[in-house]
Amino acid sequence: MLDINKAIERLDWSREPQGLYAPIAYTLASGGKRLRPQLALLSCRLFGGDEEQALPVALALEVFHNFTLLHDDVMDRASVRRGRETVHVKWNDNTAILSGDQMLIEAYKLLAEAPGDKLPVLLRWFNEMATGICEGQQYDVDFEARGDVTIEEYIEMIRLKTSVLLANALRSGAYIAGADEEQQKRLYDWGIHVGLAFQIQDDLLDVYGDEKTFGKAIGGDICCNKKTYLLLSAFAHADTAQREALEGWLARPASKEKIEAVTVLYDAIGVRAMAEEAILSHSRQALALMDSFPDNEAREQLQHLLRKLATRKN
Amino acid sequence: MLDINKAIERLDWSREPQGLYAPIAYTLASGGKRLRPQLALLSCRLFGGDEEQALPVALALEVFHNFTLLHDDVMDRASVRRGRETVHVKWNDNTAILSGDQMLIEAYKLLAEAPGDKLPVLLRWFNEMATGICEGQQYDVDFEARGDVTIEEYIEMIRLKTSVLLANALRSGAYIAGADEEQQKRLYDWGIHVGLAFQIQDDLLDVYGDEKTFGKAIGGDICCNKKTYLLLSAFAHADTAQREALEGWLARPASKEKIEAVTVLYDAIGVRAMAEEAILSHSRQALALMDSFPDNEAREQLQHLLRKLATRKN
Repeated sequence: MLDINKAIERLDWSREPQGLYAPIAYTLASGGKRLRPQLALLSCRLFGGDEEQALPVALALEVFHNFTLLHDDVMDRASVRRGRETVHVKWNDNTAILSGDQMLIEAYKLLAEAPGDKLPVLLRWFNEMATGICEGQQYDVDFEARGDVTIEEYIEMIRLKTSVLLANALRSGAYIAGADEEQQKRLYDWGIHVGLAFQIQDDLLDVYGDEKTFGKAIGGDICCNKKTYLLLSAFAHADTAQREALEGWLARPASKEKIEAVTVLYDAIGVRAMAEEAILSHSRQALALMDSFPDNEAREQLQHLLRKLATRKN
Repeated sequence: MLDINKAIERLDWSREPQGLYAPIAYTLASGGKRLRPQLALLSCRLFGGDEEQALPVALALEVFHNFTLLHDDVMDRASVRRGRETVHVKWNDNTAILSGDQMLIEAYKLLAEAPGDKLPVLLRWFNEMATGICEGQQYDVDFEARGDVTIEEYIEMIRLKTSVLLANALRSGAYIAGADEEQQKRLYDWGIHVGLAFQIQDDLLDVYGDEKTFGKAIGGDICCNKKTYLLLSAFAHADTAQREALEGWLARPASKEKIEAVTVLYDAIGVRAMAEEAILSHSRQALALMDSFPDNEAREQLQHLLRKLATRKN
């Protein structure tokens, strides 16, 4: 199997002007799971395709993903990413904006190296995906100011923000390998469910994770009143007294007591079981779709990835 | 001839989330010369092509150009553009960043509507152009902090920042019309020279323009010590006393006196004639290239554009 990390390392960012390219090199060298390019390569192998042909798209997706993190960190004023200073802290906001723009262009440059006859479809899908992710990010911002966000709206937001990138990676790899439309569609849906399970798991770990394995402080979402699957489920299922208690805590500043009190309310409302049920449901739907995939080593690896993501502790 | 303004008005930005799309609609509705899409359509007609086929690329170039203005305005902290509040002032920085990102993606969506068999080349060129513009912007930033910028470096910076977009618009239109490589190359070079003439004219008008027709205050570049063609030429040709006087004024804050004194130094060094000579030289080189273009009404219009740009007062 192709080593995606080696392929990323081979990308050359030594050209001038370094003010533009050094932050791109820095961002891509910071690691991460490389989940998206892995999915593109695996889905290509699943249908007997040549991984080398899927590599440009795989790399384009990873560069695109890192571009979104770079600009998100500016917008969220985040100072640390993967244990290192973010670009706008290490350099400045303008550098983060311009190098981020160039990174988005670099993603399209990598995409342009895909097989020419497949390029029109791959480009159209890539554009749809990129649009979805920007729309998801905008909804996330809009939700902060709204008090009436429904769980359905939340699911749609995380579908756009997280799932469509995974789904498009899978669909693109399968398309390059010559899989038919039905198979592409199943892989796409598989990616959607895996992404949703992944994101709800994220919300769950932020409250019920183990600080040691989770790698960051528990309760961050509660502190800043983030509208997560848990908080929205809590409001949807609270009785009048619980709702009033919850609203009382949301009006108060971040504190250890706030985290404890909201968690106690979550326990009483049964929010943890609801989130676990949702994760299980999406994992099961993903698993059911796998039956239709060719039975080979790539399927084994996709199944392994699904299990790992659904049971992850960090 | 296709009405480019009508085509831009037909782009639909009414979809949700409006937090993402309203700033894009606002930016594109603010007018501008629409020079880049005009060039793409004209060069297509020059070689007898169907304008409709060049329209997606023409629109992509205009949307891309407006994306660069949107992000540049954030980075420059500019509060007014084309007589209206900039997006980051009317909304906020995060909106300008995210809607700008989406605008870049929208440019690629428009490009993807170009004829499929021509898409691989058009995409590669578009990526090259976009890269050049980001590199040019970075050099512009780098130059601010440097005291040893040469005129050659400055010309290369404005070639990247201004010329390659015009040149790529022309080349793309010609390619879609089926022009051969030699013809594409000549149109590309024509665009490079026109862009350089345009940009040096910009520097000239900022000092020697008429405030009434120029539409903004004269001397803005002098006030902020901007490294323009005029300032770099002044340093390259000043004698020791003139250089010392120039350096003395650069060390002082913006004022009416500073503008007057630096202009007097420019006059003494002969900088105005140098800039006018450079504009004339690039206009002549562009004009010479026109001899090889087909003799038709589109060529007349390109010639008319060249004359207008080289003699513009605003």
